[in-house]
Amino acid sequence: MTTTPETEQDMMPVREATDWWSTGISRIRPGEILLRGYPVEQLIGEMSFTGMIWLMIRGELPTRAQERLLEAALVAAVDHGPQAPSIAAARMAATCGIGLNSAVATGVNLLGDVHGGAGQQCMEVLGQLDEEASAAGGDIDEAAARLVAEYRAAKLRVPGFGHRFHPRDPRRDPLLDLVGKAVENGEVPGRALRAGIALERALSERRGRPVPMNIDGATAIVYSELGFPPELGRGLFVLSRSVGIVSHAWEERFGGTRIKGPLPRPLLASYDGHAPREFTPKEPEERA
Amino acid sequence: MTTTPETEQDMMPVREATDWWSTGISRIRPGEILLRGYPVEQLIGEMSFTGMIWLMIRGELPTRAQERLLEAALVAAVDHGPQAPSIAAARMAATCGIGLNSAVATGVNLLGDVHGGAGQQCMEVLGQLDEEASAAGGDIDEAAARLVAEYRAAKLRVPGFGHRFHPRDPRRDPLLDLVGKAVENGEVPGRALRAGIALERALSERRGRPVPMNIDGATAIVYSELGFPPELGRGLFVLSRSVGIVSHAWEERFGGTRIKGPLPRPLLASYDGHAPREFTPKEPEERA
Amino acid sequence: MTTTPETEQDMMPVREATDWWSTGISRIRPGEILLRGYPVEQLIGEMSFTGMIWLMIRGELPTRAQERLLEAALVAAVDHGPQAPSIAAARMAATCGIGLNSAVATGVNLLGDVHGGAGQQCMEVLGQLDEEASAAGGDIDEAAARLVAEYRAAKLRVPGFGHRFHPRDPRRDPLLDLVGKAVENGEVPGRALRAGIALERALSERRGRPVPMNIDGATAIVYSELGFPPELGRGLFVLSRSVGIVSHAWEERFGGTRIKGPLPRPLLASYDGHAPREFTPKEPEERA
Amino acid sequence: MTTTPETEQDMMPVREATDWWSTGISRIRPGEILLRGYPVEQLIGEMSFTGMIWLMIRGELPTRAQERLLEAALVAAVDHGPQAPSIAAARMAATCGIGLNSAVATGVNLLGDVHGGAGQQCMEVLGQLDEEASAAGGDIDEAAARLVAEYRAAKLRVPGFGHRFHPRDPRRDPLLDLVGKAVENGEVPGRALRAGIALERALSERRGRPVPMNIDGATAIVYSELGFPPELGRGLFVLSRSVGIVSHAWEERFGGTRIKGPLPRPLLASYDGHAPREFTPKEPEERA
Repeated sequence: MTTTPETEQDMMPVREATDWWSTGISRIRPGEILLRGYPVEQLIGEMSFTGMIWLMIRGELPTRAQERLLEAALVAAVDHGPQAPSIAAARMAATCGIGLNSAVATGVNLLGDVHGGAGQQCMEVLGQLDEEASAAGGDIDEAAARLVAEYRAAKLRVPGFGHRFHPRDPRRDPLLDLVGKAVENGEVPGRALRAGIALERALSERRGRPVPMNIDGATAIVYSELGFPPELGRGLFVLSRSVGIVSHAWEERFGGTRIKGPLPRPLLASYDGHAPREFTPKEPEERA
Repeated sequence: MTTTPETEQDMMPVREATDWWSTGISRIRPGEILLRGYPVEQLIGEMSFTGMIWLMIRGELPTRAQERLLEAALVAAVDHGPQAPSIAAARMAATCGIGLNSAVATGVNLLGDVHGGAGQQCMEVLGQLDEEASAAGGDIDEAAARLVAEYRAAKLRVPGFGHRFHPRDPRRDPLLDLVGKAVENGEVPGRALRAGIALERALSERRGRPVPMNIDGATAIVYSELGFPPELGRGLFVLSRSVGIVSHAWEERFGGTRIKGPLPRPLLASYDGHAPREFTPKEPEERA
Repeated sequence: MTTTPETEQDMMPVREATDWWSTGISRIRPGEILLRGYPVEQLIGEMSFTGMIWLMIRGELPTRAQERLLEAALVAAVDHGPQAPSIAAARMAATCGIGLNSAVATGVNLLGDVHGGAGQQCMEVLGQLDEEASAAGGDIDEAAARLVAEYRAAKLRVPGFGHRFHPRDPRRDPLLDLVGKAVENGEVPGRALRAGIALERALSERRGRPVPMNIDGATAIVYSELGFPPELGRGLFVLSRSVGIVSHAWEERFGGTRIKGPLPRPLLASYDGHAPREFTPKEPEERA
Repeated sequence: MTTTPETEQDMMPVREATDWWSTGISRIRPGEILLRGYPVEQLIGEMSFTGMIWLMIRGELPTRAQERLLEAALVAAVDHGPQAPSIAAARMAATCGIGLNSAVATGVNLLGDVHGGAGQQCMEVLGQLDEEASAAGGDIDEAAARLVAEYRAAKLRVPGFGHRFHPRDPRRDPLLDLVGKAVENGEVPGRALRAGIALERALSERRGRPVPMNIDGATAIVYSELGFPPELGRGLFVLSRSVGIVSHAWEERFGGTRIKGPLPRPLLASYDGHAPREFTPKEPEERA
């Protein structure tokens, strides 16, 4: 039945296929589940969920200080209400007859470069600023002012600062306080915190009013201090915001609406397109 | 420009639109983020991530015992390797040029009725068995034997028991031990545990060999004891497995493969379709 | 490096892996792409896109009459405006910094059992009614009245009839006219059309007012007459609605909004949750 | 119950909300569906599905020549077999207990910058080359050689040329022939075709062997000649490949496998991670 030619590929060692799916994260054999080398049965009941997130992503156990900081950042970003498109889309999805998993996937999928990527981008900026300051002899404020000026010249917003909604994001202070204490205790290096504070100062001076860090900026500092690469900033945000997404999708399940759109029933989306017109199908020869 | 007729709908109170998106989970106003009534700045640094998951979904704080059990179940299910389609799909996605969030969405979307729904279904069975046993005078073993016989007659598998891979799922014992201790301490009712054990016994007797609970069964007991409705069993599994999905997607990012398919390059999917044939486009009149 | 035991699995023929991904749809070899047996280069420029959809799904070429009916149904369902959650979610997605493909995936994912499944369900009802009428001696109106009464008793809506929005769906008549002509010409059997008309009549009599078929009902008749199984009804709807989803996502890309939520900026989702409360972190021993 | 302050926002005109969802694509009112101004009932049975795609995206009807070219490109890209991750992921999804729509969404989501974006990128390159050649006095071959040299210096691949699998992509010639004829007939400008051919020549000369256009390059020429912006190149590819995705997901539904992973059952993903190790939970004070 099979018509693939039975030539080279039948000669290949099967290892090709199993190595193609090789991983260093988990070893699964009959009766055995190792996660980063640890038997899962030893972790259950002993590891915190946050510690598990660290272990799975980083490959080693966190220190208590690392776990505490990571936990604070994960807690801070769980939700920002149904006005966020990720939450709204998940709520609509929950009324369309798909499983809770698919409603969550809908929300998570929307945490893209613009909606979910600001933290990641801020981590990149923090790293860049730290490097530039070092290269230029160490004056972080001077380097921050330069970076802000460059962004302004390019008409770009520095990611992680200011909020279209909150004059001062209530999540900024507790997160930065925790990082500050960890720096004092020598638990994290403090370079990202220094860079973030310098940027906040430079931005505020430039604009002549406070431009406080938002949640993206504050968590970017936490994740940078903990040594995560920028792209994982988004990965961690996804894990955090998934909690809000599950909660909202679940709440909507009982909202009594089927096929919930963005507007309540009597309201109609307005139309600004072409005026009504007649369609006159042409004879095939005329359409040529 | 707008051509929607300016009639009834302009007369409607704007509250229609804001109430359409009403929620009891979070209150977001300028400078304020309340989560289930609590100011977010009070939670950061104090709440565990697991406690936050409970608070967001349930609306109230967990007891320490509830949090411990939930945490154990979340830790237990984070990963089962790249042979699971949810993990494999996320890894492939990570090589296709989409953000980490979209790779995670890909994996989560696959945790459907069959792949991610066994825990949810097991929770329904546990609840049903508990009710039937109560209704029939309380003999749980008799009720379990009846239920197993019914499933067998209908040629259905009881969800949550046996494993195509593990003779004995290593996650079963530690999870059930924790529930057992919580029952002893009067922290959870113990009815789901009783039902699960009875089912395991009935299945094993019926088949003449051990049919131990798998991860779906064991977490179903935890979530049932904690009072979660079945559908949230899947929601919690999604949160747990997302950790493995992020980790694997991230690992694959550095695997050096672009557009990773299921088979390594030299291997070709085999073909069992129609033999090669010529396509002879017909003149329009012949095709009629 | 690899630590998987080198035992049985190294002994397995590689065919295992290539056969695991076996397909009857396409044969891809170096320099060759066969689709359902036809060389792709013979199809390009000769096959219509609709004909290609038929060929890929059914495995054989459509007759001209089949192609015409399928085309009409695909054209009919492309869009129903941004009030549909599938369209709204895709538009929101397009403002979040994910690719057009992921915006489309977002919309398509929402075409679930409730939002996209009514056509599929209607196809099942049409088939069931046809069978019941045959079994009962052939009186389709009697069978339809019975089926409507059963649904009413179970407090269920018959899928595919009535519309919360349109008193009479403008897509009904042209689709049914086309099917009617095809029946007259002996091009399709006409059993689904007969069943649909009987249901429409029975529903209207029961309610004492017209309950005309909607787009789900009308396309269900087309797809049933063409011999598609119900589940593919949803598959074809997905292909059709994807056109509207791409168009709307693309339009939104230039709408000037970043991270578009369901409500315009100054409007806030209302809150009906717990009143503001203080969080007082307990000492670990107190929380037990 | 609602606690949102009843201040400014109650004063706002409701038009805010309906205009927020304004569109120029479709006007939906009771009993009316206008698509780009045309009543849907006039399109059904008269418009081809391909014509409908053009109308919805572009806003106006295509000429017959435009429709023919678009159709050829849509037909050409429907499938490339289960080795493509988009197809494989959709097939795995179909075995996990999610609807056909969600299986399609899974596949479409993977058509990202790398997997689905080559056509889009090629359109950008073609446009850039055309502009540069014009700016430099018109010698397209000189401009192409320069562009190829730049890519080589930057160690980048020119998107749309060469194939890791096909020595010569069988879809190239029929697509380019159609474009060539359309250029001769004055139906399309021919600038993208000229640029593409020049690039192909320059690449082949540089490497000393043929580097023929692949499907991404050939469809990029078609879409560019038809005046689509690059990003829509991906949008159209999504519509085309969705046909293959639906077909493969549907085929897999009957493959008899539940929760299909990338490897057949007896094969295990290999493991190259940390050697097995003991987890010794520390006392809280030790972990600090």
